[in-house]
Amino acid sequence: MRHDGRTHDQLRPVKITRGYIKHAEGSCLIEVGDTKVICTATLEDRVPPFMRGGGKGWITAEYAMLPRATESRNPRESSKGKVAGRTMEIQRLIGRALRSVVQLEAMGERTIWIDCDVIQADGGTRTASITGAYVAMVEAMDKLVKNGTWKQLPLTDMLAATSVGIIEGETLLDLNYKEDSSATVDMNVVMTGQGKFVELQGTGEEAPFSMEQLQEMLALAKKGVEQLFAAQRDSLHDVTLSFAGSEPQVQVTEENHV
Amino acid sequence: MRHDGRTHDQLRPVKITRGYIKHAEGSCLIEVGDTKVICTATLEDRVPPFMRGGGKGWITAEYAMLPRATESRNPRESSKGKVAGRTMEIQRLIGRALRSVVQLEAMGERTIWIDCDVIQADGGTRTASITGAYVAMVEAMDKLVKNGTWKQLPLTDMLAATSVGIIEGETLLDLNYKEDSSATVDMNVVMTGQGKFVELQGTGEEAPFSMEQLQEMLALAKKGVEQLFAAQRDSLHDVTLSFAGSEPQVQVTEENHV
Amino acid sequence: MRHDGRTHDQLRPVKITRGYIKHAEGSCLIEVGDTKVICTATLEDRVPPFMRGGGKGWITAEYAMLPRATESRNPRESSKGKVAGRTMEIQRLIGRALRSVVQLEAMGERTIWIDCDVIQADGGTRTASITGAYVAMVEAMDKLVKNGTWKQLPLTDMLAATSVGIIEGETLLDLNYKEDSSATVDMNVVMTGQGKFVELQGTGEEAPFSMEQLQEMLALAKKGVEQLFAAQRDSLHDVTLSFAGSEPQVQVTEENHV
Amino acid sequence: MRHDGRTHDQLRPVKITRGYIKHAEGSCLIEVGDTKVICTATLEDRVPPFMRGGGKGWITAEYAMLPRATESRNPRESSKGKVAGRTMEIQRLIGRALRSVVQLEAMGERTIWIDCDVIQADGGTRTASITGAYVAMVEAMDKLVKNGTWKQLPLTDMLAATSVGIIEGETLLDLNYKEDSSATVDMNVVMTGQGKFVELQGTGEEAPFSMEQLQEMLALAKKGVEQLFAAQRDSLHDVTLSFAGSEPQVQVTEENHV
Amino acid sequence: MRHDGRTHDQLRPVKITRGYIKHAEGSCLIEVGDTKVICTATLEDRVPPFMRGGGKGWITAEYAMLPRATESRNPRESSKGKVAGRTMEIQRLIGRALRSVVQLEAMGERTIWIDCDVIQADGGTRTASITGAYVAMVEAMDKLVKNGTWKQLPLTDMLAATSVGIIEGETLLDLNYKEDSSATVDMNVVMTGQGKFVELQGTGEEAPFSMEQLQEMLALAKKGVEQLFAAQRDSLHDVTLSFAGSEPQVQVTEENHV
Amino acid sequence: MRHDGRTHDQLRPVKITRGYIKHAEGSCLIEVGDTKVICTATLEDRVPPFMRGGGKGWITAEYAMLPRATESRNPRESSKGKVAGRTMEIQRLIGRALRSVVQLEAMGERTIWIDCDVIQADGGTRTASITGAYVAMVEAMDKLVKNGTWKQLPLTDMLAATSVGIIEGETLLDLNYKEDSSATVDMNVVMTGQGKFVELQGTGEEAPFSMEQLQEMLALAKKGVEQLFAAQRDSLHDVTLSFAGSEPQVQVTEENHV
Repeated sequence: MRHDGRTHDQLRPVKITRGYIKHAEGSCLIEVGDTKVICTATLEDRVPPFMRGGGKGWITAEYAMLPRATESRNPRESSKGKVAGRTMEIQRLIGRALRSVVQLEAMGERTIWIDCDVIQADGGTRTASITGAYVAMVEAMDKLVKNGTWKQLPLTDMLAATSVGIIEGETLLDLNYKEDSSATVDMNVVMTGQGKFVELQGTGEEAPFSMEQLQEMLALAKKGVEQLFAAQRDSLHDVTLSFAGSEPQVQVTEENHV
Repeated sequence: MRHDGRTHDQLRPVKITRGYIKHAEGSCLIEVGDTKVICTATLEDRVPPFMRGGGKGWITAEYAMLPRATESRNPRESSKGKVAGRTMEIQRLIGRALRSVVQLEAMGERTIWIDCDVIQADGGTRTASITGAYVAMVEAMDKLVKNGTWKQLPLTDMLAATSVGIIEGETLLDLNYKEDSSATVDMNVVMTGQGKFVELQGTGEEAPFSMEQLQEMLALAKKGVEQLFAAQRDSLHDVTLSFAGSEPQVQVTEENHV
Repeated sequence: MRHDGRTHDQLRPVKITRGYIKHAEGSCLIEVGDTKVICTATLEDRVPPFMRGGGKGWITAEYAMLPRATESRNPRESSKGKVAGRTMEIQRLIGRALRSVVQLEAMGERTIWIDCDVIQADGGTRTASITGAYVAMVEAMDKLVKNGTWKQLPLTDMLAATSVGIIEGETLLDLNYKEDSSATVDMNVVMTGQGKFVELQGTGEEAPFSMEQLQEMLALAKKGVEQLFAAQRDSLHDVTLSFAGSEPQVQVTEENHV
Repeated sequence: MRHDGRTHDQLRPVKITRGYIKHAEGSCLIEVGDTKVICTATLEDRVPPFMRGGGKGWITAEYAMLPRATESRNPRESSKGKVAGRTMEIQRLIGRALRSVVQLEAMGERTIWIDCDVIQADGGTRTASITGAYVAMVEAMDKLVKNGTWKQLPLTDMLAATSVGIIEGETLLDLNYKEDSSATVDMNVVMTGQGKFVELQGTGEEAPFSMEQLQEMLALAKKGVEQLFAAQRDSLHDVTLSFAGSEPQVQVTEENHV
Repeated sequence: MRHDGRTHDQLRPVKITRGYIKHAEGSCLIEVGDTKVICTATLEDRVPPFMRGGGKGWITAEYAMLPRATESRNPRESSKGKVAGRTMEIQRLIGRALRSVVQLEAMGERTIWIDCDVIQADGGTRTASITGAYVAMVEAMDKLVKNGTWKQLPLTDMLAATSVGIIEGETLLDLNYKEDSSATVDMNVVMTGQGKFVELQGTGEEAPFSMEQLQEMLALAKKGVEQLFAAQRDSLHDVTLSFAGSEPQVQVTEENHV
Repeated sequence: MRHDGRTHDQLRPVKITRGYIKHAEGSCLIEVGDTKVICTATLEDRVPPFMRGGGKGWITAEYAMLPRATESRNPRESSKGKVAGRTMEIQRLIGRALRSVVQLEAMGERTIWIDCDVIQADGGTRTASITGAYVAMVEAMDKLVKNGTWKQLPLTDMLAATSVGIIEGETLLDLNYKEDSSATVDMNVVMTGQGKFVELQGTGEEAPFSMEQLQEMLALAKKGVEQLFAAQRDSLHDVTLSFAGSEPQVQVTEENHV
């Protein structure tokens, strides 16, 4: 039994509130236990300089925490004048993960900016960010489907993420902050709806882990993301989520060529 | 009649949700129309270097916007590597305004950090920040009263802020973003419960204003802050808000000398 | 009687030396008591990116202090690698104030850069900067009139600034540094030749102020700026200072369309 | 057959030159094919502020590339004024990996700074850095054993790293730059001498990977690091590499308490 | 004949106005032709961290230009967020040059901060800065002699600097901006009152120079600095300028040990 | 006799290994005693913005040290977020020196980037950098001759640099770090194959130097650079080093006009 009453394979309560920020093309507030993240998606009709002229789209992400999202106050990165290594690592992860299920060729030269702002942190902020960002991104993409720019969503699959870890030899799903602090192994797993891995980031700084432990952790993660997929589908109930194969099959309309 | 149906002297709906962020000593979500700001107050048992040894406390504030708080996405100050002039101006204003009603001598060598993070912007973010920050600050201070560190709140008065302006010759209370963009005069007014001015910042970049116009605007502002005081008192209904005079009269307990 | 022998409504001696820096299109050294500021105006034949194609001009300002302008040495902002909040606040104020009396539409796509560098500080550096910057700006504009680019100065009025404040209950005009340090209320007032307000920035961090006190302060400020207008006119005796209304009435010559 | 003639499970030639930099307490040049990294280890008799007083040691790492380590010239991070996200991610990884096999409690309050500078890059620079950094670190630690400060090396195991990936469905060991560019899955694996995982970082941005593919890749990685352990042992032939269990069992001498 | 009417070995008119900035312990405005530099000296009762406990003093210098000191406006280094290479080179030169004639051992643990701010530039700003900085530094030092802290000035010699160069094969003294731009060789020479060299910085980017040309230039420089020494002595007529040998012979008073 | 057994006019052993970095168009490792510098030259088919349209080429240089190049570890400039004054001074010097022997007009609009990275430092790193950079630059230029872009090398002369100094009254050639630390005069001399001076940077911070001492030092430097020219010619034995006069006489081929 875990300190918050959960079993070893139990996710915290998940809640996704769509359309949370009125100005954004896509947005949600995702709550995983006491972890709360505002995710927004912004559509931009051009791509970064290094991609211009290629006809493809781009997804990029930024991540931040409010100073008092954490137990003790965290100075702002803007007032320190630089973005921490941890922040950069997380925002690169979020962008990479989302791009893995998007048909960039079918987007035209458009960028979707993802912003994940943690307003309250209790462990698993990066995985909650990915899970919420997927919802915000789909909401924004759906605007372009609804206005006729795209014939269908340029997506190949669902995408969600959770963490698993080992504490005192026991494998646990969805660590909260207190658990995360005492885990010897900590692993973030990003998976697709078809049960494949998009990102695996496991670290055994406190104690290396064996192949058996790895397999146990991955089985738990699979169980967790399946529940997250259900929550995402619920919140996106009004959006048609049919996926093309991973090859670009979307028929491109005129307006697609920005 | 204004585009959102208000009369010239009517505030937008105000809502203050206290205890919004679980880790913070004081916090609220303040909503003024579509403007939404998370305000937190953090207690720290020391003061900045320039005040050490003086036996007094300090209040300091930081202000930021989420990138999609605004109509179009605003790049993060952390990724630009520097804090904008506008941001600095606002956070200096918030800090100065709050300090004007606090008996710093009665705080002991403690700092209260105020963080105002705009999650959705529709005009008047700096005045909503001040109004909400007051509530978060009082909630945090009250913790020190309730645990016996202080005998009473080191406060001399209530404090709230609103904006007034002139559009096509007409004087208006509490401008939203659309109004703010077309105003020729824009003035932020911070007032105490006793109806005195703490800060007046009026700018007539588009058209200078006369003494008569100034007086009209200040009368509207007075009307507005009175409603804000009522909302603050409501949200702080469980806190005893009795004010000492502006001279430090609070009896200092042992623990006060950190 | 004030510590330097002035009455409560008396300005310090004002001296404006025009053409102080040979390379600049407009320049002056303004001295208000022991406060000395070098103001220069630079003409540039284009506007910043956000204004291009609009056909209008722009005025922007920068402000700095030499390290030993002050009693104790102030580290340079260049060596700290960032511009302080106070500096940004002041340079935004100077730019806004000057623009309020300029017909930007009549300038064509030109920028005037204002630089105010305080070489000796004794209170009131921002108001002296505004007063001196107006002279430098007019000198530079006059070059474009004299060479036939413009038919007349794109100005709607005179502009000057002073400070007022309250010390031990008494209202005083033009605070020097010593007075400023002990004032409970401090207010900067920028006014036009027609006696209207362009900027009002009053702060009662030490003690809030009433409507009556505000009116007294504004009356003193009016008296002060009238003397400053006289000093400006003296220094610009060779320039024809006739103002159009605030609507753009200047006839635009060919060259105006850069 | 790979374009450089290797089989799918073949490492590139590995060469480790110890004592490469005369001033450093530990150093080597590691060459893995055309990838060349100078690794140095610096001993410092104190720990960073956040660890002071805890009696434990610390290992930290920095990573950089010379501008012409790469095919086209890469601007220096010093001239851009900030460290890239990729760099931070790598240096955090190197530090974490090394700490996982070090008994920090047995080090006393000492820091070992690891510097990995890539002078020529051809894929796998981060894994070569970890493998080489281990050698430099052990050389530096051995100095403290040889001078009697420590009774034995504060190590629990060997440590090395390699990369694996999938190209056109085939699983490959030790990708060079050309292969890395066309891989759909890319995974860095850090392992201990006992065959456990310390870090797993797999990313399938181009194509998600299945559990079977994961297992294949990990088997290849195991084969690769075993060869790297042999190269490390060769280069450290004069150092006694006996490992304590992962619990701190080193007898601490007087001097250990700095 | 040069374009401003000077002969090849003629200095521009030199004027030194002492006590130019009231707050500084030492200050002057130095004018060399149209080049004008405000030099101040600030006394601080401690030395930088790297010198603490050594009992010696330190001299350090900073250099900057106002934006409109030059023909076209130069963006501020503070707004660019970093100090240019040229600026650093100059301030390192000024500090090094001044220290060469100061007995740091006789200063006690004190720092003298030199600030050289160019308000108008017409070539030779770094050499004018050194010449003026010497005067400001001596004025500040003399305060400590006059108040009894020091028995005599901790100086070993006079110090001044000038530039020489070669234009179309002709060797010229004290280049102004126009000349400097067309010179093939440019050399800055810092000399002591006894005619020795403290700094020689010659660069023949456009055309290398021979030993004969070097000797000619150095002879001109010697002639130039002798006139500068006269101007310095004039401006310091009230200060007793007797020099100890270069060994520290000043008798140290009690107060000298800060 | 010097502490390393050299006579006062003896250079340390010099070794130049060409083609040290495979990706660079030109490169070498230069070793002067224990000082080791990797020099690379990168060809770029355009010039910096300030030179565009002028038809001329440009040479620019960057210089850095690995953290453990020195006795004690030196923090990276990238992690400090700014480039030190000393570094800028050195890279400006290297660029200026190389340009003095290059016919920029004959290069077409091309830039050669020089990177000098000190991997081990023992005094004289800037002069070794210049000597090695010349070799790397010539190797890169020769690629353009060999592929027919240029008819001949756009060079006017050889170029090398060494240091001289005075220790306890004695004049010494090629100071190592230990000597450099105790020298009272330190001078860097950059010379051409024809024995002319390109850069002279002498500093007598510890003790000014006379004309006689200057002449002695320059004679030693001449002797030193002659040996360096021999080492450069050896390493470039396969390149035809015939120099045009300093006027551009190279016949420009079609391709030269990029």
